[in-house]
Amino acid sequence: MALIVQKYGGSSVRDTERIKKVAEHIVATRKAGHDVVVVVSAMGGTTDELLGLAQEVTAAPTPRELDMLLTSGERVSNALVAMAIQALDGAACSLTGSQAGVFTNAAHGRARITDMDPGRVRQELDRGAIVLVAGFQGVNRETGDVTTLGRGGSDTTAIALAAALKADTCEIYTDVDGVYTADPRIVPDAGRLDHITYETMQELAACGARVLAPRSVEYARRHGVPVHVRSSYHSRPGTMVCAAREVPAAERPSITGVAHDESGAKITVTGLPDRPAHAARVFRAVTDAGAELDMAVQNASHPADGRTELSFLVPADRCLSVLAALRGQHAEIGFEDICLDQHIGKVSLVGTGMRAQPGVLATFCETLAAAGVNIDIISTSGIRISAVCRAAQLGDAVRALHTAFGLGTPEAPAMVSAEGEEVRART
Amino acid sequence: MALIVQKYGGSSVRDTERIKKVAEHIVATRKAGHDVVVVVSAMGGTTDELLGLAQEVTAAPTPRELDMLLTSGERVSNALVAMAIQALDGAACSLTGSQAGVFTNAAHGRARITDMDPGRVRQELDRGAIVLVAGFQGVNRETGDVTTLGRGGSDTTAIALAAALKADTCEIYTDVDGVYTADPRIVPDAGRLDHITYETMQELAACGARVLAPRSVEYARRHGVPVHVRSSYHSRPGTMVCAAREVPAAERPSITGVAHDESGAKITVTGLPDRPAHAARVFRAVTDAGAELDMAVQNASHPADGRTELSFLVPADRCLSVLAALRGQHAEIGFEDICLDQHIGKVSLVGTGMRAQPGVLATFCETLAAAGVNIDIISTSGIRISAVCRAAQLGDAVRALHTAFGLGTPEAPAMVSAEGEEVRART
Repeated sequence: MALIVQKYGGSSVRDTERIKKVAEHIVATRKAGHDVVVVVSAMGGTTDELLGLAQEVTAAPTPRELDMLLTSGERVSNALVAMAIQALDGAACSLTGSQAGVFTNAAHGRARITDMDPGRVRQELDRGAIVLVAGFQGVNRETGDVTTLGRGGSDTTAIALAAALKADTCEIYTDVDGVYTADPRIVPDAGRLDHITYETMQELAACGARVLAPRSVEYARRHGVPVHVRSSYHSRPGTMVCAAREVPAAERPSITGVAHDESGAKITVTGLPDRPAHAARVFRAVTDAGAELDMAVQNASHPADGRTELSFLVPADRCLSVLAALRGQHAEIGFEDICLDQHIGKVSLVGTGMRAQPGVLATFCETLAAAGVNIDIISTSGIRISAVCRAAQLGDAVRALHTAFGLGTPEAPAMVSAEGEEVRART
Repeated sequence: MALIVQKYGGSSVRDTERIKKVAEHIVATRKAGHDVVVVVSAMGGTTDELLGLAQEVTAAPTPRELDMLLTSGERVSNALVAMAIQALDGAACSLTGSQAGVFTNAAHGRARITDMDPGRVRQELDRGAIVLVAGFQGVNRETGDVTTLGRGGSDTTAIALAAALKADTCEIYTDVDGVYTADPRIVPDAGRLDHITYETMQELAACGARVLAPRSVEYARRHGVPVHVRSSYHSRPGTMVCAAREVPAAERPSITGVAHDESGAKITVTGLPDRPAHAARVFRAVTDAGAELDMAVQNASHPADGRTELSFLVPADRCLSVLAALRGQHAEIGFEDICLDQHIGKVSLVGTGMRAQPGVLATFCETLAAAGVNIDIISTSGIRISAVCRAAQLGDAVRALHTAFGLGTPEAPAMVSAEGEEVRART
């Protein structure tokens, strides 16, 4: 008998028909002899409706009240799933994040879990019940206030519960059937991965792969929780996210996949004095405006005036407040002008084996050049190369890289694995 | 500076426009220099929508999960009102029933408040905030489970907070402008009462007056909370519900008002052995089926067979389950047949002065007879006379009694007050 944590996203519970299907699946898991803890997101569309109500009331709702508002959505879906399970004669009990012992810091809207105390969950499991836990939400121990965990928060709730309960596995049910080498809507021959390491999954997620939020993967990695990403529409296995040592040797590719992201906008600050303090002031202003920076690059300063140019990406939905913040500190920062470019995309190649393969960066650039894609900014980490290009060329860039690195072909070329062994990737 | 608790019903916050109006009114109260605690019901229609979802999932949702589901409605409305106040530059903080320290027993769906610990409310008031508290909900201290207080629960929340905080007044904002001598839709010359005693209000509420739930009035009486029932559409004073000694002498009428109730159904059990144990079995079966009994009356037994007939009212929406329960215990109870009559109504005359006026019951019966209304069952308490009649005659009965007891005329006849003094009522 195993202990299984299952998480269902908003589209899996978007109406009461789907809720009844989910309940059947949960009851079947219980009847197979397992202890089951379930995390359910708000019914699809609920969060947008609630945000719409908030916008009707005020253009700038406070994060604390927004959290109070939004957390109602998961109460509804979890209570309905519990009722549907009870209607199938299963014992069930729904708990709020607070009741389930999900404690967070006080950062409303993007809280981090500080500790887990799943005593009540354990108690309900011990009396034979299926336990439903409202995802995405927690409580701050000091204030008693309700918090939310930000994007992908329900994944984090599920993984944190799995860690705290030492569950055998955490199943993330979604509307795709696993993690792919690229987005199949863009790359028709993209392949589903049977296994992926936490590290690689985290990079793919950070680079725009939407199947799991980066923060939840980080949590799984830190606590060694085996995560199974699978479809809520059929019972075939999906993708296991696990430690590198648990990935079968034959599945340890040098390059794992291509991710893309269209959610950024590029800001360029020109005529900036080329002294460290000035770039720091820009970064501070951006951070204070609530935006995360990405792909920052500074040009060599112009010999004539010692001034330089700083470019970076911010989330497109924050770019106007970032611009306002920068313009408000024009004098202190001391720049000449700011340009905004909203028509950009970012393509990223991810794989742990990249470290061992010096030619990857060259191949990456040659491939994009051959595809006619102009690189605007390029940045590399140990297991990732990312490039900013025109948004209109993003699909071409993804397809070209996917093919060039042999990700889509059933007979992938021989590559050096992360451990330096020569393996045949993905066969 | 006073401490005022305000309660707004679902129709007062049915959309975001009304929510903004309510916020303006709250902020105006705060700007007048008062500390303000606000209890808001779920937005009009929300509770029915949530019940509809539950019904789609199962015909018999468990009370615990139903409470988890329904309490989401008040979180939404309270958070939205808090945001609307903040948009007007008011400091505001919304709290769940649990955060506000509303502790109840474990009777899901009809929980009773066991104790109040409004420390967090006091703390937020001390820092100058307007405090919003989700009505209708509490938490059980032993289990940590969310509970609801049943019909009129938000009134009870407001009154309980007013009692615990020793507030100067509890204002109940509603879509009528006070308590009337009868329902103005039925009796055109019904008059608004400036004052009414807890005792009388409780009887009127129990007899069908919908402006306040009986349980909330009982709570106010027990804790001596002055309750001001008033309109959310204008600022004119409404009706003060208070202790008898606080009602001005000139406003101490012998008879206060006429209430009516169409929500009951009459059940008659025939051929019942005329021994106490048998009636008791009937009452136990009805109570176990979750229905409250009212107006029970037993006929003298028939000399031939020693059998009798027992009639009583139950809420119409419970009558089918009561019938099923009784039929299921046919043999144990030992009756011959059951009749159900759903076309009945109940009219009640209420007033504390009734005790001192021996002729009231006779006048009551003569009035109904003269109006052609046949009395089916009659029952009296110290301050109330109730009669069951045909539903179709209920309006006639209310109007006839209202006129006969001089409730609607500006020059009411001299009557003996509750204290035995002769006063001119309601002039």
